[in-house]
Amino acid sequence: MDIVSIIRRKREKQELNDEEIRYFVSKYVRDEITDAQAAALMSYIYINGLTADEILNLSKAMASSGDMIDLSEISENIVDKHSTGGVGDKASILLMPILASLNIPVAKILNRGYGITGGIIDKLESIPGFNTNLSNEEFLKNLKDVGVSVMAQGLNLAPAESKMYRLRNQIGCENSLPILASSLMSLKLATGSNKIVFDITFGKGTYIETKEEARRLAKLLIKLGKTLNKEVVCLISSISQPLGTSIGDVLEIKETIMALRGIISEDLGNMVEVLGSLMISLATDNKDLDENTQMIKETIKSGKAFDKFKEMIEKQGGDTNYVDDPELLPRSKYIMPVLSTESGTVESIDTDIVGSIAIYLGAGRMKNAESVNATSGITLNKKIGDMVLVGETLAYVHTDDDKKINGTTQQLKEAFKITNKKINNNSSYIEIIK
Amino acid sequence: MDIVSIIRRKREKQELNDEEIRYFVSKYVRDEITDAQAAALMSYIYINGLTADEILNLSKAMASSGDMIDLSEISENIVDKHSTGGVGDKASILLMPILASLNIPVAKILNRGYGITGGIIDKLESIPGFNTNLSNEEFLKNLKDVGVSVMAQGLNLAPAESKMYRLRNQIGCENSLPILASSLMSLKLATGSNKIVFDITFGKGTYIETKEEARRLAKLLIKLGKTLNKEVVCLISSISQPLGTSIGDVLEIKETIMALRGIISEDLGNMVEVLGSLMISLATDNKDLDENTQMIKETIKSGKAFDKFKEMIEKQGGDTNYVDDPELLPRSKYIMPVLSTESGTVESIDTDIVGSIAIYLGAGRMKNAESVNATSGITLNKKIGDMVLVGETLAYVHTDDDKKINGTTQQLKEAFKITNKKINNNSSYIEIIK
Repeated sequence: MDIVSIIRRKREKQELNDEEIRYFVSKYVRDEITDAQAAALMSYIYINGLTADEILNLSKAMASSGDMIDLSEISENIVDKHSTGGVGDKASILLMPILASLNIPVAKILNRGYGITGGIIDKLESIPGFNTNLSNEEFLKNLKDVGVSVMAQGLNLAPAESKMYRLRNQIGCENSLPILASSLMSLKLATGSNKIVFDITFGKGTYIETKEEARRLAKLLIKLGKTLNKEVVCLISSISQPLGTSIGDVLEIKETIMALRGIISEDLGNMVEVLGSLMISLATDNKDLDENTQMIKETIKSGKAFDKFKEMIEKQGGDTNYVDDPELLPRSKYIMPVLSTESGTVESIDTDIVGSIAIYLGAGRMKNAESVNATSGITLNKKIGDMVLVGETLAYVHTDDDKKINGTTQQLKEAFKITNKKINNNSSYIEIIK
Repeated sequence: MDIVSIIRRKREKQELNDEEIRYFVSKYVRDEITDAQAAALMSYIYINGLTADEILNLSKAMASSGDMIDLSEISENIVDKHSTGGVGDKASILLMPILASLNIPVAKILNRGYGITGGIIDKLESIPGFNTNLSNEEFLKNLKDVGVSVMAQGLNLAPAESKMYRLRNQIGCENSLPILASSLMSLKLATGSNKIVFDITFGKGTYIETKEEARRLAKLLIKLGKTLNKEVVCLISSISQPLGTSIGDVLEIKETIMALRGIISEDLGNMVEVLGSLMISLATDNKDLDENTQMIKETIKSGKAFDKFKEMIEKQGGDTNYVDDPELLPRSKYIMPVLSTESGTVESIDTDIVGSIAIYLGAGRMKNAESVNATSGITLNKKIGDMVLVGETLAYVHTDDDKKINGTTQQLKEAFKITNKKINNNSSYIEIIK
């Protein structure tokens, strides 16, 4: 077996067998297959696709390329949620205390993320003292005591997936559905989750352009889940603006804390309710999504979710003073308003541009090694459907670097499309596929 | 402009414009585009092809990626010959003194080759003292005085082509006809040759599998030549065994010297006559190929070609004692016979296997940096159509490394297919396309 023959076989539309796929993944992760060879294979996969068996085998091979754990051994009712990503998406963090406060265990074992902003670990670590380097025992004890636990320690989850992720961005293959399906599932296989909600976003600033593609990905994941004996539900939703009002680690933690106090933007609140109600329906006998949504509203309103968040932060060493008063969290040296030069209604906010600016400001990292500038980022003062007058603030740029102010404020202004037409601010598309 | 968009455009079967192609080539040669990105682009080119304009622009961009010279300024009648390569092909070296002895100037400006064996430079340098590091003045003076000159000094010819060459072998794209056509032409553009014979081999051990593919490549090259105002003739020939009797730098120089004395294997002699007669027809008014063949036979028979070779070697500092007595040239510590275990007629010699063994023995280099073990290699004692008895020698392995003897002699034996049927030893296919 050699990689050139495997590449040629895929080029000739032949189905790769399990052995060939494992050969590729295991050699690639050990740098015994070059990026160029992986890129060629991925390009032919892009064109010729993968069969259901190939997707299955690729998921398994990527999952077993690193450490593996089995969350389902802790509890069969642990539900995992995975998002294909969106700019400013803090729904995952919000759902942790919300579900735990409803007695649904939340166990998160994560790689440090990279992308538009840091991952969940980076965001939570912006609360001083918060420690995700737990031992297995500490992790399990927290889960038992508090109902929620987050661990990043010493684990190397699906390294082949990370390598493929970087490669696919480099060569414009980020929207290859069979590779995306394998990648997403490999991460869940590596942590042994049996019940999964995939949150698939489409539109600008995401990998998936159209509703149809999002549906196809959802169907691939559900089919894959069936084969693997996992309960999979997919939520597909359009993205026409960043979720919530902030992009950046510290900024998003502040927004999370405010949201748990009930101050939450409509789009973020909606997303949390839909995702949360689906997760409850997977974890419990409560299958009525409306009832589940009501429970979520209630646990936030009552302050139980906020208390659970505080408990979770405290249990993992975080200083809860910052939760009580998020204004104590550090802030950037410069917080510069972006002023509108037009009057009208916000029609759209270009998520692609907002994401690029966030990366440029240092809020995200594109390589594993790059450190994230935790305080920098963007806050949005106006969202779709909001009225705006000339001179009003559309958004703020947060940065420590005065040289970055002019360019980013100008670009950010251009990301807002202002119209004279009436805008329905509830136009975002949401569909549940199971 | 960015490489990911260029990759996507080629994936979507769009024609890349000149600017995009130059962007890719210039950035790739400066390592500002990764191998993975180049591999993805090349893979989509493999599937979706290139238009005539794209091939033209790619040739030009690769040619201008390094140093450029213009041989046609020296003489309009300088004919260049380029082979797509074959195992044991020493026709190029043989043709140098042959043509020069017929007053057809031969000017060779070359990169150090790599592949199954070293290139022309490596081979000639196995004659002690022979120096290819000439100044432009020395090069021109030799050409004027002797009619033949070889230079490798300080030139970086079409580095993008070398980079693409390595990449294409790495990802199984070596038989992409539009890329091959661009690559071959780029090398000729870099040296400004106006009259070119392309020697396209097909069959095992070459890049091109079938006669039909060889014909298509020939047609691409001829069309490209027309656009570039160059006279192009292609010779396509099948390869069912290595050309001549030796593979390895010193071994091939010995064979070259013997050939110039008239002791030449039938297949090599035939190839030299066909190629040479085509080159003469391009360089002069002698268009009759049979007459030209006769001239070649004559110049060898009369010793004029041998004398010209000696003159050429002497002029560039080589010790002609080695030309007078090639047995003075160094030899490997071990020269091990490969004995036949069957009786019959040689039906074929697997050129792929022979090439692999040659590389393993150190006769070729796969990376620019690897040094070639000049004395090692293979000599063939039997060729297609030859009778062989059990215990007779099929070939010899030449090596300084005793650990390599057992494996290679065994493999080499297996490269020979012996049959009881009658074999026509003149079955190789040759076609001229212009």
